[in-house]
Amino acid sequence: MGRWEPDAPERLVLAALDLFTEQGYENTAVAQIAERAGLTKSTFFRHFRDKREVLFGGQEVLAEMLTSGIAGAPEQAGPLAAVEAALVAVSAGLTEERRAHGPQRLAVIAGNVELRERDALKMVGFSTAMAEALCRRGVPELEASVAAELGVLAFRRGYHRWLENGGDFAEVARRTLREVRAAVAGLEGGE
Amino acid sequence: MGRWEPDAPERLVLAALDLFTEQGYENTAVAQIAERAGLTKSTFFRHFRDKREVLFGGQEVLAEMLTSGIAGAPEQAGPLAAVEAALVAVSAGLTEERRAHGPQRLAVIAGNVELRERDALKMVGFSTAMAEALCRRGVPELEASVAAELGVLAFRRGYHRWLENGGDFAEVARRTLREVRAAVAGLEGGE
Repeated sequence: MGRWEPDAPERLVLAALDLFTEQGYENTAVAQIAERAGLTKSTFFRHFRDKREVLFGGQEVLAEMLTSGIAGAPEQAGPLAAVEAALVAVSAGLTEERRAHGPQRLAVIAGNVELRERDALKMVGFSTAMAEALCRRGVPELEASVAAELGVLAFRRGYHRWLENGGDFAEVARRTLREVRAAVAGLEGGE
Repeated sequence: MGRWEPDAPERLVLAALDLFTEQGYENTAVAQIAERAGLTKSTFFRHFRDKREVLFGGQEVLAEMLTSGIAGAPEQAGPLAAVEAALVAVSAGLTEERRAHGPQRLAVIAGNVELRERDALKMVGFSTAMAEALCRRGVPELEASVAAELGVLAFRRGYHRWLENGGDFAEVARRTLREVRAAVAGLEGGE
């Protein structure tokens, strides 16, 4: 098994997604995932806390990227420019490998209400991470919350677009955030 | 039991919140809730699907109020004015009784990650309901999503404020949405 070890998480993810798709998330046990991947249960648990973690692993890393993107934005950047920097920073975590799994992962989540709940809280986590990072830059709390919500909206839309069309996530996210900002301007202009 | 029937849901909610607070949500069984309320398990299940429902019941009704608030806004109202109408409409569901339980309910939710996930998806549901209702008024999809997210932000903040200070939720929500709009203007003005 030793020589396969570097690939273990990837093999477990592929095996899990296939099983979730074939027989449903609820009906899949960790032992089956490990077996399908040709690995042991203890290898599974070395990489993932539980089967849900296969779908949501890496959340802390992405949140941390968002946070450092905001912290590292130029001092004179306004809140939305800092949010843009966050989305650009997070693109480092959105690899081709992740994109390859993306559609199957989304389909599994969409088919299970518990997973949709988990996913919703993940987005709340991203929003909170960005809002807190903005507050640390001196942005007033409500403006920080609004900017973070707009950032999460751009993140979600950009993510779907990126899964569909590929390309560099940073570029896709920048474009999506520009569109979100235009929509915001349209909203207030329209009344 | 017959003469108590009209009060059953309220008694069950109070019993459940007390038990969740005393011994934890996870450690509380439906049978205990029914017993504490002096009712049977079957009465419980006549009013609630499960113990989680005690905390999240009425979500569909509130979403429906948001939707009809938007549908019923004056034809010339822009997206954010329609969102304001939604928040005003939902105030009919935010009764004094609901306010009395609110802080305890929030504390129980905050203490359990599954409940936080459930709550996050509830907010996604509110956002989707508002966005769809706005689209049906001819608002472009992205503007509708942005307006709905701002509406949910105002709803959440308004709700906390209302729990703390009381008063008419409609008034609190109107004020909160005004502040959110000012924050949006501040964001774009700041760059």
